[in-house]
Amino acid sequence: MTTTTKGEEEEESEQVVTPWDVSAGADGKIDYTKLVREFGCSEIDENLIERIERCTKTKAHPFLRRGLFFAHRELDEIVSAYEKGEKFYLYTGRGPSSESLHLGHLVPFQFTKWLQDAFKVPLVIQLTDDEKFLWKDLQLEDCRRLARENAKDIAACGFNPETTFIFADASYMCSSFYVNMVKIAKCVTFNQAKGIFGFTGDSNIGQIGFPPVQAAPSFPDCFPHMFGMNKKSLKCLIPCAIDQDPYFRMTRDVSHRIGGYKPALVESRFFPALKGESGKMSASDPTSAIYVTDTAKEIKNKINKHAFSGGGATIEEQRENGANLEVDVPWKWLNFFLEDDEKLKEIGEKYGSGEMLTGEIKQILVDVLTPMVEEHQKRRALVTDEVLDVYFNPTKTPKVFLDLFREYEEKEFGKWEKKKGGGDSENDDLCAALEEKMKLEGATENEEGCAIGAPKSEDWLRIRKERMQRDAPTEGSKSALKKAAKIKAAAEKKAAEKAAKAAARGEAAT
Amino acid sequence: MTTTTKGEEEEESEQVVTPWDVSAGADGKIDYTKLVREFGCSEIDENLIERIERCTKTKAHPFLRRGLFFAHRELDEIVSAYEKGEKFYLYTGRGPSSESLHLGHLVPFQFTKWLQDAFKVPLVIQLTDDEKFLWKDLQLEDCRRLARENAKDIAACGFNPETTFIFADASYMCSSFYVNMVKIAKCVTFNQAKGIFGFTGDSNIGQIGFPPVQAAPSFPDCFPHMFGMNKKSLKCLIPCAIDQDPYFRMTRDVSHRIGGYKPALVESRFFPALKGESGKMSASDPTSAIYVTDTAKEIKNKINKHAFSGGGATIEEQRENGANLEVDVPWKWLNFFLEDDEKLKEIGEKYGSGEMLTGEIKQILVDVLTPMVEEHQKRRALVTDEVLDVYFNPTKTPKVFLDLFREYEEKEFGKWEKKKGGGDSENDDLCAALEEKMKLEGATENEEGCAIGAPKSEDWLRIRKERMQRDAPTEGSKSALKKAAKIKAAAEKKAAEKAAKAAARGEAAT
Repeated sequence: MTTTTKGEEEEESEQVVTPWDVSAGADGKIDYTKLVREFGCSEIDENLIERIERCTKTKAHPFLRRGLFFAHRELDEIVSAYEKGEKFYLYTGRGPSSESLHLGHLVPFQFTKWLQDAFKVPLVIQLTDDEKFLWKDLQLEDCRRLARENAKDIAACGFNPETTFIFADASYMCSSFYVNMVKIAKCVTFNQAKGIFGFTGDSNIGQIGFPPVQAAPSFPDCFPHMFGMNKKSLKCLIPCAIDQDPYFRMTRDVSHRIGGYKPALVESRFFPALKGESGKMSASDPTSAIYVTDTAKEIKNKINKHAFSGGGATIEEQRENGANLEVDVPWKWLNFFLEDDEKLKEIGEKYGSGEMLTGEIKQILVDVLTPMVEEHQKRRALVTDEVLDVYFNPTKTPKVFLDLFREYEEKEFGKWEKKKGGGDSENDDLCAALEEKMKLEGATENEEGCAIGAPKSEDWLRIRKERMQRDAPTEGSKSALKKAAKIKAAAEKKAAEKAAKAAARGEAAT
Repeated sequence: MTTTTKGEEEEESEQVVTPWDVSAGADGKIDYTKLVREFGCSEIDENLIERIERCTKTKAHPFLRRGLFFAHRELDEIVSAYEKGEKFYLYTGRGPSSESLHLGHLVPFQFTKWLQDAFKVPLVIQLTDDEKFLWKDLQLEDCRRLARENAKDIAACGFNPETTFIFADASYMCSSFYVNMVKIAKCVTFNQAKGIFGFTGDSNIGQIGFPPVQAAPSFPDCFPHMFGMNKKSLKCLIPCAIDQDPYFRMTRDVSHRIGGYKPALVESRFFPALKGESGKMSASDPTSAIYVTDTAKEIKNKINKHAFSGGGATIEEQRENGANLEVDVPWKWLNFFLEDDEKLKEIGEKYGSGEMLTGEIKQILVDVLTPMVEEHQKRRALVTDEVLDVYFNPTKTPKVFLDLFREYEEKEFGKWEKKKGGGDSENDDLCAALEEKMKLEGATENEEGCAIGAPKSEDWLRIRKERMQRDAPTEGSKSALKKAAKIKAAAEKKAAEKAAKAAARGEAAT
């Protein structure tokens, strides 16, 4: 999964948006209304945002309330089901082709973290090392290494290590995953794939075979260790940039033919490049983006020197006409990263009217980004290989279902928790009890194939049993889990502090 | 892997041979000389057969000495290396689309068993359940079931259970395999694949992505549990029908680009259909072939009623002109299955001259096939799921390397054999000793990347160590191994008896 940043040449008169190519129309802008119409997705309205806030008892993330995540497919149905007590899982990803992430890369992960915490649902994160290898002039071994490096930055966003599974395609590939790939692939002809993705006769057959790899995680039985072997055990919600829509349009088209649910989507606009909407953030031009590895000095320099300004050419012009917020990058970036709505509004008014100068808004942006990036770097430093292994562990503790089977799972796994390291016979007893309970549960409450997230298959029970017997956590993995929990807690504490500050400011303002 | 049987309509004027379509030229015959020229492979000559007999100290299999396996790619290089003490591994396969095999399906497996025993090398057998699903109107679950059913018939051929790994793609798919697939796929464009396999815009993207799945097992690191993680640990020899040549032409073209050896090939003619060269053996017409499940009565009836005869239309005509051996199916089939060269020659002379009648040669064929099929059925009945699991076990005992590292492996694994079921610390000691020994071996005898079959990677040692700790054989698997060994012994005993009889007859004749 690659999140393309807005870019490419201005010469193009028609806007083009595919997973590998995003170019604006003749006016240098992406026409998002047109995109929504062409792709056939829906815009997110106030009513949907309110319903999300109500059922999660959480204030909407700025990306949501400011329309940065602006489009969806069946997000309303996910919310309706959630209102009735039905859970789902989140799926997002990244194509690992660079050493470190830039701020635009963080956007979907920050939003996904918010979704995970607000809805309290499990999450899978795909790293498409295979995709990057197939498309770029890179060795597979390098892409696999980059996947692990990038995963450290992703983990540093503070995902819950107990409910988050990060995987790289080349390492995770297994029967459950491949079976889904093959079933999806049979439903799509070359001509169809050509229409969706623009393949040509020169495309390599790995590229042509790739879309099912990105489609597969939309089905929960790709992850039997988390969701069981039932393709309808859980519905899937995918947060991504809108350029990934073609993959999931294809996935939704074939879902019913392979016996699964259509994945729902929540889609973002593109993160504007530092040098302006029509510029491209590029790894070969380090001044075109701010990286999570940049120092305070680099951040300041880049913003002052390279951030495209919509302000007047001179102080006088700015005072007289104000700034053009439509093209001003500091203003756009503040919309992403300044959490305080009131302060943002004030800046917009002052800068737009000419009361505030370009240097001032750039300084505000520096003040917002510097601590954000420094905080990220601190958390990233805590993500050792041991911590990362907790996220990558495909025999992850089944505690992921704590929330899904709240009542009895908590009891049962609490019991297991106390017994860990105990003998096999104890686990056998527990598994038998659990199996019995699940059978009862199945008989009384759930229909076969219904979406409450209760995998009942004998196979899954067997796998789970084997896993429990094998994976009584060691001291090492326990400390790694603690460390990962610490990273998450730090991220949460910071968010809470910000929210408190924002609330205080909000109160002061009203 | 699908071995196509000669067939299709006679109307076609140009012969077409692809993995999915074999149709003869205007004269209803396959022009093998033309095929060899077009494909760019070589014919097997007397000299090469003699060298094989000399270095294996084994008389050439009838399929080889009668030119039924007639073409090759670099088989001479495999033999040259073998003469110098270098081993290789065998790779063959089948596309499981029918419940039971017909006699034509047995041909490559019978020959592969002979190669395995003569050269004393390990063998991998791929069941392409994914291919059959992608090409046929079948559910994947059915193809997976058929793979297991077909594997029972394959195991009944008597392969050495300790050096044979049977796998079905949908079940075995794993990181090591996928990494090879992706690397191969990157080297082949759609246009190239179209040229080799005849894909069109209506081909599904699973089909287009499939050739790398059949290509991958040509590289030993697809099987780290057997051959380690070094792509050049062993060379590969592939026995198959010549219609599979396109897959391996492609594989050989990309081998050096992904850092592997080109696989060598030994290729057979097509097994003629019962109703004649231009007829097709078809699952929908049970009289078109003899199945390994047929009764003695069915065999007799099918041969008498349906076997295409090249004999005279009347007794008088046959006495006068003799039979046309070029098109006579009983004669062709005897060439495959009658081991006694002298007797075969005699039949050919008598039948060709008119001394022998069609009814007589058909009776000889019935007498050859009936005990062969009955013997197969007896051995097949012994292949329980437990026995099959021994062949399918991907954590197979590393004893597969007994022959490759004869001197010290025998000693080391003998030690392990005695210790099995023992504590971890004993295994640790053993592994450390083995590791030390392999390091020395590597330093003194083998170059990194050389082909003696000695994987030295740290990773592989780790995997092997883990496996040894985990897989001390249980009573159950031991008895299954014994049972499988019994099947093999029965097959060998029978072959020895036949050989002895043939030798006796040969002596009597001279």
